[in-house]
Amino acid sequence: MKKIVLLRHGESEWNLENRFTGWTDVDLTAKGIEEAKRAGLLLKKEGFQFDIAYTSFLKRAIKTLNYTLDKLNQDWIPIEKSWRLNEKHYGALQGFNKSETALKFGEEQVLIWRRSYNVAPESLSDDDPRNPRFEIRYKDVPDMELPRTESLEDAIHRTMPYWECLIFPNLKTANEILVVAHGNSLRGIVKHLKNISDADIVNLNLPTGIPYVFEFDESLNLVKDYFLGDPEEVKKLMEAVANQAKK
Amino acid sequence: MKKIVLLRHGESEWNLENRFTGWTDVDLTAKGIEEAKRAGLLLKKEGFQFDIAYTSFLKRAIKTLNYTLDKLNQDWIPIEKSWRLNEKHYGALQGFNKSETALKFGEEQVLIWRRSYNVAPESLSDDDPRNPRFEIRYKDVPDMELPRTESLEDAIHRTMPYWECLIFPNLKTANEILVVAHGNSLRGIVKHLKNISDADIVNLNLPTGIPYVFEFDESLNLVKDYFLGDPEEVKKLMEAVANQAKK
Repeated sequence: MKKIVLLRHGESEWNLENRFTGWTDVDLTAKGIEEAKRAGLLLKKEGFQFDIAYTSFLKRAIKTLNYTLDKLNQDWIPIEKSWRLNEKHYGALQGFNKSETALKFGEEQVLIWRRSYNVAPESLSDDDPRNPRFEIRYKDVPDMELPRTESLEDAIHRTMPYWECLIFPNLKTANEILVVAHGNSLRGIVKHLKNISDADIVNLNLPTGIPYVFEFDESLNLVKDYFLGDPEEVKKLMEAVANQAKK
Repeated sequence: MKKIVLLRHGESEWNLENRFTGWTDVDLTAKGIEEAKRAGLLLKKEGFQFDIAYTSFLKRAIKTLNYTLDKLNQDWIPIEKSWRLNEKHYGALQGFNKSETALKFGEEQVLIWRRSYNVAPESLSDDDPRNPRFEIRYKDVPDMELPRTESLEDAIHRTMPYWECLIFPNLKTANEILVVAHGNSLRGIVKHLKNISDADIVNLNLPTGIPYVFEFDESLNLVKDYFLGDPEEVKKLMEAVANQAKK
């Protein structure tokens, strides 16, 4: 069986501060590091030997990948990074506290920004210092491709070409592939693999730090998918993420 | 000015245990991690912005690179790993305590193995579990290329093709390149860049965790080279490495 494992990065500093993060390059917390190490140990226990790993341009995903590979003693495998695996861009909301934003715009509006499929927060203006066009890390991305805000749909649309052209075709020769990314870029991949509707994908809450395994036959048809670890704990973690969004 | 920075990884567990390491994949110590972070801060202070980084297949170099990039907030840059940047292979001595080896073979013999240019320790036998042919990480390396022991000369001869074909030509388009590797693979690069003789290169003791900067003009001629950080401290660190070899 060929396998692709999706892994959502662990707790970041702005999770803890309850701020909209998006493309802001915040670090993992100590808890986030522990989540990454635990993911590595779970994968090690199951005997995974990855051929290649993919991650985003954001520190919290890259470091999650590094800690995971370190626990697997697979630091040496090739790693490819792409801005296309970044988290959904949160536009003008990036950096703002979620509770304060709810007070300002109303809880209902914030819930729409956070949970609708195709409504994006207000765009960053072109001279906003948070605009990705000012960041050297995106120097090779054509300006018209760089988002100033994104709906979940937008985020999925810029993630999927990378999945279709680079990650998935690699499975023809590779046997095991690891993808460490973010709640919303991973939603796009899961939506595609499991043919989930636009309406239902917003309700998929991937747990952080839990490897999500997809198995494929030799013709690369999806055979089954499952989370590693204790099913009861996985269920609790998914509910916790869902409830976090309700607060 | 175009720049290539060489960085030797910090203290590893077997430095501390005084054992021959070579291709054994030992981890950094807490001190080694601090050395890597300090290197990152030194590079940050000087405003380095790397286009790409190269490292070996060994955890102590890869993790040094990761910690360095993290301090620079340049986790996102592309990283290329190659077995050709690995430490010198120490053959049958790998894993043995240096003092015990001196008792067994005589101090003079050990000094020859450690400090001569073209004498290699005894080879690993083909069925020795330490033989790199058993390691999945070297699965893409033709067996005849995989060392069972190496002199400094051997190590330099397998490092330099990677430097000549991959790292250095990249400087035509890149402006700043980081190479994180090992005492002996880096010796090869420095020998080549500064045209150091076989006899003299064995006396070059690169300090660990101190970025060594090489500046090139637009025609890629070497203009100058220098260590970052306090010169007095660098001198002391180089003497310490030299004395370590005498013990």
